[in-house]
Amino acid sequence: MLKNYRIVLEYDGSRYDGWQKQGNTDRTIQGKIEGILERLAGEPIEVHGSGRTDAGVHALAQTANFHLNVKLSDLEIKEYLNQYLPEDISVIRLDKVPERFHSRLNAEEKTYLYQIETAGKKKVFERKYFYGFGRPLDVNAMKRASEYLIGEHDFKSFCSNKKMKKTTVRNVKRIEFQEKGSQLFIRFTGNGFLHHMVRILMGTLIEVGERKKSPEQMNVILKAMNRSEAGFTAPAEGLFLEKVSYKA
Amino acid sequence: MLKNYRIVLEYDGSRYDGWQKQGNTDRTIQGKIEGILERLAGEPIEVHGSGRTDAGVHALAQTANFHLNVKLSDLEIKEYLNQYLPEDISVIRLDKVPERFHSRLNAEEKTYLYQIETAGKKKVFERKYFYGFGRPLDVNAMKRASEYLIGEHDFKSFCSNKKMKKTTVRNVKRIEFQEKGSQLFIRFTGNGFLHHMVRILMGTLIEVGERKKSPEQMNVILKAMNRSEAGFTAPAEGLFLEKVSYKA
Repeated sequence: MLKNYRIVLEYDGSRYDGWQKQGNTDRTIQGKIEGILERLAGEPIEVHGSGRTDAGVHALAQTANFHLNVKLSDLEIKEYLNQYLPEDISVIRLDKVPERFHSRLNAEEKTYLYQIETAGKKKVFERKYFYGFGRPLDVNAMKRASEYLIGEHDFKSFCSNKKMKKTTVRNVKRIEFQEKGSQLFIRFTGNGFLHHMVRILMGTLIEVGERKKSPEQMNVILKAMNRSEAGFTAPAEGLFLEKVSYKA
Repeated sequence: MLKNYRIVLEYDGSRYDGWQKQGNTDRTIQGKIEGILERLAGEPIEVHGSGRTDAGVHALAQTANFHLNVKLSDLEIKEYLNQYLPEDISVIRLDKVPERFHSRLNAEEKTYLYQIETAGKKKVFERKYFYGFGRPLDVNAMKRASEYLIGEHDFKSFCSNKKMKKTTVRNVKRIEFQEKGSQLFIRFTGNGFLHHMVRILMGTLIEVGERKKSPEQMNVILKAMNRSEAGFTAPAEGLFLEKVSYKA
């Protein structure tokens, strides 16, 4: 009998073309996992992620699910996956979930973490995990700007997909700032995010932080519903999918 | 006129055959720096490190010096090096020092940091910077064992060079333990360390931590002056040269 399995994944996205399987499946996270499950099951197995992560974006707890019928315990399946997955992808949890569970459709809340190095030094150990902005940022201005984003809004200005036909309304619940020396950590929590949305929000907040835009301009940009009003797309290497929450 | 420059370096040793230039200079830290200085000076420049680091060992503050005669400010030389050095090697400081300064001969004290992951999880972001021991360790027993090592001793049991003709006496000043969740950090400070000494001390302390050896056995091993009495050589990826101190 087919059982529905949920997995929680950690990965270093540096070497990959993102989550979603493409023509060449060899360099996507989804492709790597499906390849191993196919070997285990003897037939193709489709893995449903909670959402795509772009090329170069990392995950601390991406969530996915798949249906499988094998005579192995949960622990054995998890260990099989970890044995054959490359060293930069890890299954940190695996459990059986009800038949109807779908990692994307049932996701209630997601948190993305963005990491910035504001010191002008050459990054060595941080080079794959921080955006090396390299100059001071006015974090208080960024915080004030971020307040305009909280709540349910049409985030069309922060969506890179111009042909988006579905709704661009999302509910951003929290944007939290944390400073550790010259490192800045920003967490975005919401019911979902559009394509490149976190990176465009981040790029726009950075432009506020360098005083190219005022905090109040954030509200004008939001209302414009026009991508060209917003700031740049902050680079992928600073971004982590940190958490996906489901109803208990 | 030739001036004597001191540089402080940070590097991720993962891709390198260690500090010291070898036949193939292309994959050593010293070789990389000398190659760039030769391009700058138009002649070969020798770089003297405070000591070698093995293949795969990292540095947070390796120190080196070299003599150079160019019409560039200190900042310009530093920026030239950082521009041409690969992204996993960085000059974090450069200053002129007295003619007689030698980074190895004048070093007073060195600190090495060793990082261990004791949780049984597959490492993703830690994979190049932690030894994935993967099982709990009796840190109190390790601390008791480490006390026998403090002070001036003949550390022949902890030296991998069997043909070592020079003295194997060293003064270990401090061994400090720090625990953060499942991560264990151990700092070794001394007036100098023999070839592989920190990694063999660490391997022996780990064997105490897994109760294969008693803390008191450390004293027996030290007195034996025989490498085969000590524990295994802990892997390179967990080791960082953290600090080199000089007289003010």
